[in-house]
Amino acid sequence: MVITSAPGKVILFGEHAVVYGEPALAGAIERRVYVEMEEGRRDGLTISSEGVEDGDEYALRYLRKAVEVALVHLGADRDRGLEVRVASHIPMASGLGSSAAVSVATILAVSRLLGAELSGEALAGLGHQVELQVQEAASPTDTLTSALGGVLYIEPGRGYKRIAASLPLVVGCTGDPRATKEMVRGVRDLRDRYPRIVDPLIKSIGEVTREAKVCLEERRDIGELMNINHGLLEALGVGTKGLSHLVHAARAAGASGAKITGAGGGGSMIAYAPREVERVVRAIEGLGCTAFQVSIAVEGARVEKKGLL
Amino acid sequence: MVITSAPGKVILFGEHAVVYGEPALAGAIERRVYVEMEEGRRDGLTISSEGVEDGDEYALRYLRKAVEVALVHLGADRDRGLEVRVASHIPMASGLGSSAAVSVATILAVSRLLGAELSGEALAGLGHQVELQVQEAASPTDTLTSALGGVLYIEPGRGYKRIAASLPLVVGCTGDPRATKEMVRGVRDLRDRYPRIVDPLIKSIGEVTREAKVCLEERRDIGELMNINHGLLEALGVGTKGLSHLVHAARAAGASGAKITGAGGGGSMIAYAPREVERVVRAIEGLGCTAFQVSIAVEGARVEKKGLL
Repeated sequence: MVITSAPGKVILFGEHAVVYGEPALAGAIERRVYVEMEEGRRDGLTISSEGVEDGDEYALRYLRKAVEVALVHLGADRDRGLEVRVASHIPMASGLGSSAAVSVATILAVSRLLGAELSGEALAGLGHQVELQVQEAASPTDTLTSALGGVLYIEPGRGYKRIAASLPLVVGCTGDPRATKEMVRGVRDLRDRYPRIVDPLIKSIGEVTREAKVCLEERRDIGELMNINHGLLEALGVGTKGLSHLVHAARAAGASGAKITGAGGGGSMIAYAPREVERVVRAIEGLGCTAFQVSIAVEGARVEKKGLL
Repeated sequence: MVITSAPGKVILFGEHAVVYGEPALAGAIERRVYVEMEEGRRDGLTISSEGVEDGDEYALRYLRKAVEVALVHLGADRDRGLEVRVASHIPMASGLGSSAAVSVATILAVSRLLGAELSGEALAGLGHQVELQVQEAASPTDTLTSALGGVLYIEPGRGYKRIAASLPLVVGCTGDPRATKEMVRGVRDLRDRYPRIVDPLIKSIGEVTREAKVCLEERRDIGELMNINHGLLEALGVGTKGLSHLVHAARAAGASGAKITGAGGGGSMIAYAPREVERVVRAIEGLGCTAFQVSIAVEGARVEKKGLL
């Protein structure tokens, strides 16, 4: 039997602009999906998902596809008997990378059970394939961050760089499902209609991300840059009333900065709270939303020593 | 006896960016300051200001300075006896141009009482002098818009153009005093620290304003452009929790767009509401703030036919 886990992620800077070639900063978060896997007594996949709260069926589509992709990649029989248990500590459909984490943890489990070693990048690549097959379009950011862990500065088409950073973050979930596809399409549509407005705006987001990378490397406060990035995302039309309330509540409670994380249109926000973490969490909860303090997961996908299910 | 009035204003697009040479769109609003003036029985100024609700003393500083500037400009005795009554229907210190309107209406009253004719631009110029003397720094936009009325597309250093536009607007006042000087300084400071972020951002605001001018000329909806402009102002750091709540409440109530108007940091927001005007007003009032529907004042400063005091 093998037990694996993989972390969720937040986009720290650069969402949407990354679609147009600007860099992004993503961080793996210490909220994980756990997968326990053993040889099955009969052919095919047997899944139990106690512990996966909402969106079970959604998560299980990724799990099934990940098993298939991994078996095919490793040259194994697609019908190999496998018993899998999965538990997720990442809120589903909140833009926190739960589907990427399910995919990556599952692929790692299959490979280890079959005695294979995959690099983090190979794991990320296979996970990205899973996402592409289940949801048609997907950015490679989520699976890369989940596979490798840490904070990654990603330059589209030019690779990534790992940034050593420990960040006191608060994540707030609006509870409204994120709307990635619609938001990406909305930004594209806005850019088609107003290129002279949106092009410098996207360039400005890119510069915020470059500046934030330097800030992180120099261990300076990134709150102000988060606030700028948030306004630029609002300008792109991906803000909502709910996200805006959480962002302003977090700032008022003492966060040094706060912004939408991910595609927007719902989903989650993050606050950078080197002080007053508890107050920031309570301020978001006070608006009837879920909030939790979270640190950067330095380790990405990994084999666990003992069961956590 | 002469009775004059001058309208308040809203900045429709381009606040803050105008400081860096980008254009701005301002509109005179059908909320006026009224000044009733007659020869006094004794030397000097006698003021009664029944009807001016809050900020009386604040408004009266502009009134006194405006009388002085006008008398000096017209070559009259500074100590000439004048009895003045003033009434304002513009909320004070909300960024709606009440001080410019007081200045302009007062200068027009003095000039008419003395039998002089001043052009709208001369009126605006003298009004700007008053603002500069009372508050040190002032943009010429407020007095120009109050003196001339209508919607003005203003290009710094290159003059202005009048746009024929009738706009269904809702103004919402947070009740927090605006903080023009601090906000202008804050943006300058942000630009000094992050020129590569803030320069394209300001350019983007300029393009929003240019696009909005075309929209107004073609009688198209400006709501989406207002939303973009709002996000860019948030990115510049002049947003507040209160302004953000009013903006999002207005949009949720059916406004096609909403934004901060003026310097931010408090003060007022505007919503473009071709439909659902009443709902937008009630949504803002529901948050405990003042809101009113307002149309563009086609006429600027003018002599009134009969007393309104």
